[in-house]
Amino acid sequence: MKALVYHGAGNKAWEEKPKPVILKPTDAIVKILKTTICGTDLHIMKGDLPEVADGRIIGHEGVGIVEETGSAVSNYKVGDHVIISCVTSCGKCENCKKGMYSHCADGGWILGYMIDGTQAEYVRIPHADNSLYPIPAGSDEEALVMLSDILPTGFECGVLNGQVKPGDTIAIIGAGPVGMAALLTSQFYTPAEIIVIDQDDNRLAVAKTFGATHIINSASENAVEQVMALTNGKGVDTAIEAVGLAATFELCEEIVAAGGHIANIGVHGKSATLHLETLWSKNITITTRLVDTVTTPMLFKTVISKKIEPKKLITHRFRLDQVIEAYDTFGNAAKEKALKVILTNE
Amino acid sequence: MKALVYHGAGNKAWEEKPKPVILKPTDAIVKILKTTICGTDLHIMKGDLPEVADGRIIGHEGVGIVEETGSAVSNYKVGDHVIISCVTSCGKCENCKKGMYSHCADGGWILGYMIDGTQAEYVRIPHADNSLYPIPAGSDEEALVMLSDILPTGFECGVLNGQVKPGDTIAIIGAGPVGMAALLTSQFYTPAEIIVIDQDDNRLAVAKTFGATHIINSASENAVEQVMALTNGKGVDTAIEAVGLAATFELCEEIVAAGGHIANIGVHGKSATLHLETLWSKNITITTRLVDTVTTPMLFKTVISKKIEPKKLITHRFRLDQVIEAYDTFGNAAKEKALKVILTNE
Amino acid sequence: MKALVYHGAGNKAWEEKPKPVILKPTDAIVKILKTTICGTDLHIMKGDLPEVADGRIIGHEGVGIVEETGSAVSNYKVGDHVIISCVTSCGKCENCKKGMYSHCADGGWILGYMIDGTQAEYVRIPHADNSLYPIPAGSDEEALVMLSDILPTGFECGVLNGQVKPGDTIAIIGAGPVGMAALLTSQFYTPAEIIVIDQDDNRLAVAKTFGATHIINSASENAVEQVMALTNGKGVDTAIEAVGLAATFELCEEIVAAGGHIANIGVHGKSATLHLETLWSKNITITTRLVDTVTTPMLFKTVISKKIEPKKLITHRFRLDQVIEAYDTFGNAAKEKALKVILTNE
Amino acid sequence: MKALVYHGAGNKAWEEKPKPVILKPTDAIVKILKTTICGTDLHIMKGDLPEVADGRIIGHEGVGIVEETGSAVSNYKVGDHVIISCVTSCGKCENCKKGMYSHCADGGWILGYMIDGTQAEYVRIPHADNSLYPIPAGSDEEALVMLSDILPTGFECGVLNGQVKPGDTIAIIGAGPVGMAALLTSQFYTPAEIIVIDQDDNRLAVAKTFGATHIINSASENAVEQVMALTNGKGVDTAIEAVGLAATFELCEEIVAAGGHIANIGVHGKSATLHLETLWSKNITITTRLVDTVTTPMLFKTVISKKIEPKKLITHRFRLDQVIEAYDTFGNAAKEKALKVILTNE
Repeated sequence: MKALVYHGAGNKAWEEKPKPVILKPTDAIVKILKTTICGTDLHIMKGDLPEVADGRIIGHEGVGIVEETGSAVSNYKVGDHVIISCVTSCGKCENCKKGMYSHCADGGWILGYMIDGTQAEYVRIPHADNSLYPIPAGSDEEALVMLSDILPTGFECGVLNGQVKPGDTIAIIGAGPVGMAALLTSQFYTPAEIIVIDQDDNRLAVAKTFGATHIINSASENAVEQVMALTNGKGVDTAIEAVGLAATFELCEEIVAAGGHIANIGVHGKSATLHLETLWSKNITITTRLVDTVTTPMLFKTVISKKIEPKKLITHRFRLDQVIEAYDTFGNAAKEKALKVILTNE
Repeated sequence: MKALVYHGAGNKAWEEKPKPVILKPTDAIVKILKTTICGTDLHIMKGDLPEVADGRIIGHEGVGIVEETGSAVSNYKVGDHVIISCVTSCGKCENCKKGMYSHCADGGWILGYMIDGTQAEYVRIPHADNSLYPIPAGSDEEALVMLSDILPTGFECGVLNGQVKPGDTIAIIGAGPVGMAALLTSQFYTPAEIIVIDQDDNRLAVAKTFGATHIINSASENAVEQVMALTNGKGVDTAIEAVGLAATFELCEEIVAAGGHIANIGVHGKSATLHLETLWSKNITITTRLVDTVTTPMLFKTVISKKIEPKKLITHRFRLDQVIEAYDTFGNAAKEKALKVILTNE
Repeated sequence: MKALVYHGAGNKAWEEKPKPVILKPTDAIVKILKTTICGTDLHIMKGDLPEVADGRIIGHEGVGIVEETGSAVSNYKVGDHVIISCVTSCGKCENCKKGMYSHCADGGWILGYMIDGTQAEYVRIPHADNSLYPIPAGSDEEALVMLSDILPTGFECGVLNGQVKPGDTIAIIGAGPVGMAALLTSQFYTPAEIIVIDQDDNRLAVAKTFGATHIINSASENAVEQVMALTNGKGVDTAIEAVGLAATFELCEEIVAAGGHIANIGVHGKSATLHLETLWSKNITITTRLVDTVTTPMLFKTVISKKIEPKKLITHRFRLDQVIEAYDTFGNAAKEKALKVILTNE
Repeated sequence: MKALVYHGAGNKAWEEKPKPVILKPTDAIVKILKTTICGTDLHIMKGDLPEVADGRIIGHEGVGIVEETGSAVSNYKVGDHVIISCVTSCGKCENCKKGMYSHCADGGWILGYMIDGTQAEYVRIPHADNSLYPIPAGSDEEALVMLSDILPTGFECGVLNGQVKPGDTIAIIGAGPVGMAALLTSQFYTPAEIIVIDQDDNRLAVAKTFGATHIINSASENAVEQVMALTNGKGVDTAIEAVGLAATFELCEEIVAAGGHIANIGVHGKSATLHLETLWSKNITITTRLVDTVTTPMLFKTVISKKIEPKKLITHRFRLDQVIEAYDTFGNAAKEKALKVILTNE
């Protein structure tokens, strides 16, 4: 089969690889119908995650058709259409039993990272009964690709951890795909005001159409002053960090109200300064989280019932064999005005 | 009347002051029966809180007898014995209605700080209906002084915010009075293991008698290694910071397990380094809080029913007019083996 | 002044009464601008609540202007526009401190019931600081009348107690004003499916325009069968009872899914049969509640930010001196297609 | 092998049966070391559960040694000592993913009911990875038998659902084994007062030694009056029903305070009267639950750390082949002063 393969920092190829086979009774082989590229994949390709082996097939999102199942797989049969979760979970270790699938003893985020992933014609999914989700006939499968990673990430790490409530004023720092997913899913809880902060005017304009009530370009405006002006000097109930930099995290510290929440989504490579000298008495809550995908069934119901339209996030479409071109587009997201790119294997 | 008065960094005096009078219909005047000294009072006396005015009467803890009430006070009458809460709350502002009394629009921690306090023969208590708690006849009033500040502080900021659960393994960093209050009240939720970390062997020995299952002297042992050895390399479910230094906060970051909690109690003067490069994916929750004293009624019931014995925290007793001597003892806590000192006005 | 006065079962009159005066320092006198009629008022007028005294002025909803304040009122001054909460709360008793204002030791629902109410030119509001809410200049005051009772009742007793979540399937039994308030406010949490059940086709048609995804006329259809057909035989996540009859409560018992919630809003005069022989193992939660109005600040923000349009609930408008006519209209709600009637005093 | 077999109402025999074999890759065969008898087993033997087939091996509690594992079992290997949970859970159906194992699509309570159980020399455990719990070497296995059913049942259905908090006043109605389990585990949350109500003076005396602060014999005393006298007329924060009769459930309705909880544990054969005419406005919460055993890992930690001593519940010991005699003893619990009987297969 053909697959996108990582060959060290800066080197990738769309090349022939052996079709995956069942290794354990709980595995399934899935033929990819649609997949996408994540910001994390760009980091891998740059060599920022040196633990990724040369020869690894990248990608952790997608929908497909079950091609083969191990003897212990009972939730799925050959021919079923499925969503592939970015997180693999055994369902039976201590952490899975707590709903913390991201720290599964035999899973977590391994797909397209520690094991071969979804930017390929076929993929092996361990613990298939727990790591796949069924797609009913007639569903819009393009929309459902957003359930692999981006929607649960924005929702769990940003919205749920941030405890967004009706009437709240929230800020989302970073209007990339995950920030946008937080923006869309935060509206499940009906905040009164949603302030989106970014440095890209195009993304801010898109955020406005996705439900932001206020936008701030932090490259040209003083974001702290603007937020304080919008909140009568109180700050926001919840600040969602969707960038992954110390500066944006520290911005959250400055704009959170007493009693408020900072919900980190961003992948951070460096530490930040925690201003305990001001925050110690402010009754705030800071959370971090690697997405657990425990809310995928809940999110699925909101997509199927059209309470949310995740296709809004898709800006570009390619054939799977155009994946290199798709990386170029996604890698120049600002210039290309790209959010999510969809790759179709048909 | 006589009172302990702050006269700038390093200067305090037990001197004559005018007896307080009712200023608003919601005020009460309380005759002090017993009071105590808080670590924060030591900071004030050192000049660490320059916003405290020369001439201020210090102290924010105590029990007493209602001497006079304003026209709008209805919960108390002259002669009632009361606990004085360290936090003043109007009960009717936005924050009070959320239970965040510490950020009351007309209160919060002001006693012995922004207004005259309890290390005196009499004190004026604003919003008396909300800021006092009734003492039934026959109660042990010495024990109840611990409800003014130290027990709710350890409980709310440490135990509740840390979400301590039955069977958990927790660590308390700092075995001073507030850390001890967290130690005592954490046992309301029956954790399996309680690790107390300090640099004072005497305090650690006392912690053992108060319910610590493991003690670590971080001056002589590698606390991170010890905690990891005790937890099979997982870390603790909840780490409670009860010191107020960057180093102890950062220790919490190192020992918290995936999915765990860091509950800050300490008053911090400087920022700490937040290691987001490791914590971003660990599903942790960090909380800060200025005590709200919303749990005082709950804690009162646990004291009256003898589920907790706060008198354990009292190591020294003085007459109120010996307050200078009491400060000397409390200020040399390690040498004097002091936790809480009680001052009695009789 | 003029007021609507109850004179025993079946007798009411729009008649002259003394203008109310301040009785306690925490009172305020409010000039009524707009008020409305509640289903409970109809029950009082029929004599169903014999504890209501002859001569009582009825009504517990409205907006107005502060005319006079007692000496201890600090949140409001003469001339302020305010929402009058149906629940009076002192903010300082044990139950108020828990947020259970409905069981306030010196309040609860007393307005237009135990003390004179709002269907009058003026009303005395005890504990004004806690029982009124400020109206900013320029607000649509008609919409805000819905915050006195109906919106918090539907929201607190139905939606919050029913723990409605994104993606849920819920049923609301009863499409009267309070059921409609539950319908509108349930959408704050983005349920996937909202089934409304009633016996009045007009109300069901209105429910459809308010966001119901399915409607069932239980007079002509088998509601249990219909709900089971819509839910693949599972039943609903939350069943909200907004009628107040044993039959409708028992319908909830039949349609609730395993793990689901029955949230009672209805005022019941008789007991119901609780089918523990089937429910004991179904992991369900049943709640009852007299509205506490603790969510009024939250709901206010959703109204001001136009996340909800409560004016949809208003079907008829009268001058305050037409109150007898307004009762006739509201008392024939089905025929008149009435939900809420607004009475304006201008 | 030998096993206790049900042969219709009133007929049981200790007889030869085929040793169970692996039927699915997720099965394990466990050699029973210790088992016990549940009140439900008595009901089965009387014929109260007619769905139980003639020939069924009874019993759903026990500890044992893994004898054989299916190909997909990865958490356990031959020779491991394990606790057998009364609830079988696949870990991968919709309900298991919500933590509602009791309603597992391929499990729930089936052991000794729909499939052969544990009162035998060997038992087949479906979904072994999820339905067994590991026993470390050196553990007191007799105590751990209490983790199969009785401790999680009392804890989940009574204590957790009843939301017992520090300082609360709670009542437990029924001092049989499950009521006693609720009594022991409620103390994890440090209630101030625990009132136990039963009609058996011996059991009440035992309850006193297990931590009850007040006991009421409802055969000789007016339980409602007594509870109201003990609670200043307020009633209890939580009433736990551990009998399974309409009368005891309705007693809970009478003694629950405003804002309180009724947590049903009892298995009910008939409906009860729900007094909505008084309860509708009392802000109460009623819960039902079939034990999910999701708290077994948490409870295990409390047992291992000796925060609870479940062996207190064991009153009688037999060899497994004396099971008929053990049933006689347990069936005459009042006369024999029996709580739990342990059967050992050695």
